[in-house]
Parts: sequence; C-alpha cells; structure tokens
Amino acid sequence: MKVTTSRGVASIVEGGSITTPRGFVAGAVYAGIKTLGGDKLDVGILASERPCTAAAMFTRSTVKGAPVIVSQRHVADGSARAIVVNSGISNVANGAQGIADAEEMCRLAASRLGIASDELLVGSTGVIGKPLPMDRIREGIARMELSPDSGHDFARAIMTTDTHAKTLAVRFHADGRDYTIAAAAKGSGMIHPDMATMFCFLTTDAPVEQAFLRASLRGAVGDSLNMISVDGDTSTSDTVAILANGAAGGEPIRAAHPGGPAFESALLDVCTRTAKMLARDGEGATKLIEVRLEGAASREDARRAARTITASPLVKTAVHGADPNWGRVLMAVGRSGAQITLDNARVWLGDTLMFDGNRATYDESAVSGYLRNEDVVIRADLGSGEHRATAWGCDMSADYVHINSDYTT
Amino acid sequence: MKVTTSRGVASIVEGGSITTPRGFVAGAVYAGIKTLGGDKLDVGILASERPCTAAAMFTRSTVKGAPVIVSQRHVADGSARAIVVNSGISNVANGAQGIADAEEMCRLAASRLGIASDELLVGSTGVIGKPLPMDRIREGIARMELSPDSGHDFARAIMTTDTHAKTLAVRFHADGRDYTIAAAAKGSGMIHPDMATMFCFLTTDAPVEQAFLRASLRGAVGDSLNMISVDGDTSTSDTVAILANGAAGGEPIRAAHPGGPAFESALLDVCTRTAKMLARDGEGATKLIEVRLEGAASREDARRAARTITASPLVKTAVHGADPNWGRVLMAVGRSGAQITLDNARVWLGDTLMFDGNRATYDESAVSGYLRNEDVVIRADLGSGEHRATAWGCDMSADYVHINSDYTT
Repeated sequence: MKVTTSRGVASIVEGGSITTPRGFVAGAVYAGIKTLGGDKLDVGILASERPCTAAAMFTRSTVKGAPVIVSQRHVADGSARAIVVNSGISNVANGAQGIADAEEMCRLAASRLGIASDELLVGSTGVIGKPLPMDRIREGIARMELSPDSGHDFARAIMTTDTHAKTLAVRFHADGRDYTIAAAAKGSGMIHPDMATMFCFLTTDAPVEQAFLRASLRGAVGDSLNMISVDGDTSTSDTVAILANGAAGGEPIRAAHPGGPAFESALLDVCTRTAKMLARDGEGATKLIEVRLEGAASREDARRAARTITASPLVKTAVHGADPNWGRVLMAVGRSGAQITLDNARVWLGDTLMFDGNRATYDESAVSGYLRNEDVVIRADLGSGEHRATAWGCDMSADYVHINSDYTT
Repeated sequence: MKVTTSRGVASIVEGGSITTPRGFVAGAVYAGIKTLGGDKLDVGILASERPCTAAAMFTRSTVKGAPVIVSQRHVADGSARAIVVNSGISNVANGAQGIADAEEMCRLAASRLGIASDELLVGSTGVIGKPLPMDRIREGIARMELSPDSGHDFARAIMTTDTHAKTLAVRFHADGRDYTIAAAAKGSGMIHPDMATMFCFLTTDAPVEQAFLRASLRGAVGDSLNMISVDGDTSTSDTVAILANGAAGGEPIRAAHPGGPAFESALLDVCTRTAKMLARDGEGATKLIEVRLEGAASREDARRAARTITASPLVKTAVHGADPNWGRVLMAVGRSGAQITLDNARVWLGDTLMFDGNRATYDESAVSGYLRNEDVVIRADLGSGEHRATAWGCDMSADYVHINSDYTT
C-alpha cells in the first residue's frame, strides 16, 4: 500500500514490539538481579544489524546515574547501534565503580555483538546505591540469544514495579515507502514531568538525518513523555533513546524531505501512546487521567498548569475516590503559578461543566459515576488566553503507599 | 522574674492558648457547617480588647479565596483587632457572592465586638466551591460568648482533618518585662512550602512597632511554616496573621529596641513549634520527619533541597515503611535542582552514615529500627558549600489516600 501524501497517518502493528522495525534484534535473560520471582527477565540487549543515527534525552536531575553519564558520552557523536540494560539495581551513587561497571556492560555487549563499545548505550533501573552484581551480568550476557522475535522479552527485562511489559510498533507511509517506529518502555513510579522516570527506547527502520532525528525526538518527548506524572518524583536514570537504522531504504528523512512531517507525526504518536501506557500503569493506579488545559496566557502556563493538576495528590486521591471535588483542580492551577482569570475560568469533569466563574449546577451522582471510569478527562479553561496543553497522570490509591513503603527490604 | 539580657529565652506556658497573652478574648460555636459530628465547633472569633498593630502573610496561589482578598485589604494599613473564622467550607471560587459573604462575616463580628468592620480579618477553611451557609453563620455569631478562657475552643473551630487542636503560648522576657506570644493553627493536608496550607493566628501582648512586626513575621515564617510539607499541594486560603496589642505595657519594640531580638527569637520559637505540630499531624501521618540540609552552595539550594526531600512521596513512603532507602534522598536532591558534588556528599538516617560518595557500611536492621521512631531525622550534606536549612514533613501512609479519597462526598 503506497501513500503519496507527505503526512501519513500512523497505524498500530498488531502484536508489534521494539524489534518490529526491520534490522533489529533483541535478547533477554534472567541473571538473578531482581529478587522478586525467578521467572522474570533482568538483563537485555537491543541491537541493530547495521549502523544507526541516534538521538537521546536524559534526566535533568543533578544526581545522574552512571549509565546516564556513560550513555551521554557514547551518543554525543549522533550515532549508536545497540542498548544494554538491566533492571533490579539502578547503578546510581556507586562512585567510580559505578562508571566502571556501566562501561563494562557496554564492552560485554559490544563484544557479544562484534561492534565497538562506544556504539552502545546503557541503562540500569531499580534500587539506588547498591553495586551491580557484575558476575551475574557477565554470565547473563554470555548466554543471551539475540533474535528479531525477542522484542517482548526485551521489554520485560526493563520492568521494575510495572505490572506489564510495554512495547508497541506503528507503521507510517512516507515518500512511497512503509516505515515502522517502535518503542519499549518502563516506569511506573518516580515519574514526573521534566523527563519523567522512565526508559523509553525507540527503534525505526526509516533512514533519518541526525539533526532532524534529534529535533523530532525533542519535540515528541516534550508533548508526550514529559507531560506525564505519577508521583512528582524524578528519577536519576531517565533515558529516552532512538536508533534509526534505515533498513527500510529510501533517502534520509529530514525537515525539508516529504517524509519529514509523517515521521514527526508517527514518532509523536508512538511517544504519546507510550506515555499514556506508563501513566495508566502508574504504581497503584486504577485510572488514566487526561488533563486538557486551555485558555492559558502562554504555552508555559498551559504546560505548567496541566502538569500540576496531574501531579496533585489531592486531585489524584479525589479521582481515585470518584469524588467530584473540582475545587482541587482550581487549587492545583493556583499552585502552578499559571495566570487564571477566575471570572472567565471553567472546569469540566468529563463533559460536565462544574465551574464557570462560580459553582455550576450539575448532577453530583452522575459526575461521581463518570469518575468511576478507567479513563477520566479533566478539562480546565484558565480564561486568560489561547494556549493549550495536554498532560496525563493516574489516580493515587493506597496501593501506591504499600508498593513504595517496602521496596528495598 | 526579670531578664536583663536583650536576647531572652522563650519558655512554654503550660496549658497556654491563643488567649494567654493579656487582653485577648475568643469564642466558638457549632453552627452546623461541618457535617462530621455534632460536637465540633466551626465558627470562631478571636479579638483584642484594645487596638493592635498587625501583620499578615497569605497564600501565593494565583487562586485566592474570598477571605484572603478581604483580609489583605483590611490589614493593608498595618492594624487589625480581631479575626473571624469558620471551618467546613473555604469560600473559594464563589464569585462576587464569596466576597460579599466574607465581608458580611467581618460586619457580623465587628458589630458583635463594637468595632469597625475593617478591623477584622477573616478566614474560611474546608471544601472549595460551596457557598457559605450565611444564615447559620449569622445565628452562630449572634449567640457566641467571648471570654479569655476560650482560646482552646477557638483552635477547635478552625480544625478540618486535623486530629487535634493546635494552640500554644510562650513567654519571653525583654527590657524588664514579661511578654507572651501565642498561636492557634490548623492544617494537615494541602500543605507545602511557599506558604503552606494553613491558618496560623498569632497574638502577643507585647507592643510592637508595625514595620518591625511585619519584618519579624516574614523572617519567622520563612524558617518555620514555609519549611513544612505534607503533600506538596498549596491551599487557596493560607493565612498567617499576628495581632500585637501591647497590653503588657512597655515601649514599642522595634529592631533597635533592646527587646527586638528577644521578640524575634520568641516569635520564631512559636512558629517553629507550630510548624512541627502541623507536620506531625499531617493527614495520615505517623511520624515527624526533620530534614537537616547542609553543605549547599547557596541558601536557596539548601532550602529547595530540604523542601524537596520532605515533599517526596518516595522518601515519605520509605520512612513510613521503615525502609532505609537513602537512595531516594539523593533522588530528591537531584530533582530539586540543587547543586550536589556526589563525591563529597553524605547522607545520614539518624546518626547512621548511609552514603559518603559511595554506599557506606551500616547495619540495615538497626537503621530500620531507628526509622520506626516517631521522630526521624534525615541529614544530607551536598558537599558543595556552607549553606544549610531545616525542613519538616511527615511520612505518607495509606490513610493519606483514604482521608483524601472521600472528603466532599
């Protein structure tokens, strides 16, 4: 099927995974790092059979894990070809040994793949401040089998408190060709805007010019993965990386290229779907909350207000309890510092107008019924301008506390 | 007992309350605004028998309750003589009617006291966006009895989800006289630095010059009430106000006055004790967490890092579970944006060094035992300078979620 419009519409690939794009393989083993159950996977490799252009974004935390520091160095030249990961221990705050261990993980994977060590990115997620059991990682990588069918296993190998593995692929058409973009992601706690806690690894078989790849990633992440919040906490290890191997052929995609907008649109689609999966699977979450913020005086106000609403424990607990306490939405807007003109402001829960400069008349039990849905939309108009933003979060349940009160011990 | 040093030491008055300073009376009734139980009090008045200098600080939220707007107007001239409050409904987002109701509360109390309406401050706390039942408030104020013995009742009348009333008085000696400063406060959710959610009303029988009163209040609140966090949410109604009636005699205290430092020190003492009471009684809290931050590159870094640690859900849940997960302390510092030099940084839980540029050797079960105390101290040295700050918070339990999932309904 050929699509000749320059702006293709991305479509989900049923059962797709991070290895659905052509020319990617993956592998995963249980090396014994995670202590919770023996059937889990905790070390993985994702690799392209050919060189890739690459782009990555990392946590803005001033405390960065060793894998972040090493990966930043390796991706600085705009290329990378593989990613090695483990879950269970995050390799943060381990001093010089942490850097040495992250570098050794790259060397082990590179030698297994027959490529250079600086073509590897590395990620570790889990408890902070425990040394990596390098003997187990060595043994695990040595016996790992790589195949185009192991994308789902790779996604399992990066899970920590996630309740399910997260990977998907979308197909888009550009310039007469079919291309695929895929993601594998993890993260359900320590998630907050500003490069939320997460891994999100992306692959595509489209050939993408390096500068355009970087700009597209920044744009897509800004409107998707950076707009989710689970608990306001930010990880030391957040990593989003994309590898574009060009295995599907064609001219390198760039801004001026007819495929440019289609690529950007498909990448945003993958990142948004991933962001919503992460938010919905937030620790202890039972609902996905989408906040549609409009009428803001500036783009920054819109983003800040939307993010503050999704991050507010009082909003999150109210939604959890199906309590139509829209006043907390106004409270969160007020705390965000965004300009709001109360007389013109409006708040909706679902389709029900709750506030329009004053308490609106509504059917409380109907709204409470709406809030029992698994998908809840909160819409707020600040009455101060034309800017808008969308953010995603989840409700807060007592399980969030249970999960996080007993994590290391 | 006369104290001739200019810097007196404040001492607690056993059983003291907001009406312990000379020349103050209070009253409280149950008017039927709170729906939770009939023995509660929900409307109160606090008044001085003579004119006062006054100073106040209010929420920085861009969504301000009607009582905040009216009180800001009334205290602008640096004087006020009484405070009228209700709990159960916060009178926020009620449009023009909200302002009219807040003004009527001032008029009703003023007429009851025989003073001018603009000598009143007003505060309402509770659910946002419900109209005040003015008929009940009128009836309540009409039958209210005022006495110097009703300070504890006044403190009860401002409670919402607080588990106990909070009022205390301290005595200090300055310039050959005894003076008393007292506080009545409320607030256990929607509390976060930047003028945390709370009411904190203060009285003193010291004569205090207006500009000095304002500066002293700002200084004391900055290091106490603005350094507590329960859940990161900020209220629309936060109010701290002090009335100084001079009933104990003496020359007006000012910066240059020998009593100046003693007054500042006593005021900080009252505010710090109040801040700790509020944090300890945070919604669902079982512990008080004190964060002592040192080695920061700037005062702002120290405050920001300390506040971020107390506000972090992951730190709060770890402390709740007595889980010595010090990595989350580093994570929170990193998120705060404060400069940290990891190689020189240190983290202690109680007296136990957990991290000194690397994981320290410690007895995990002993630290876990320490974390089961009701008072937990987290100490962090950022290894980047000489600035320090102290902040207070509480652990997060499943009860926080239970309390906030079902508040209006």
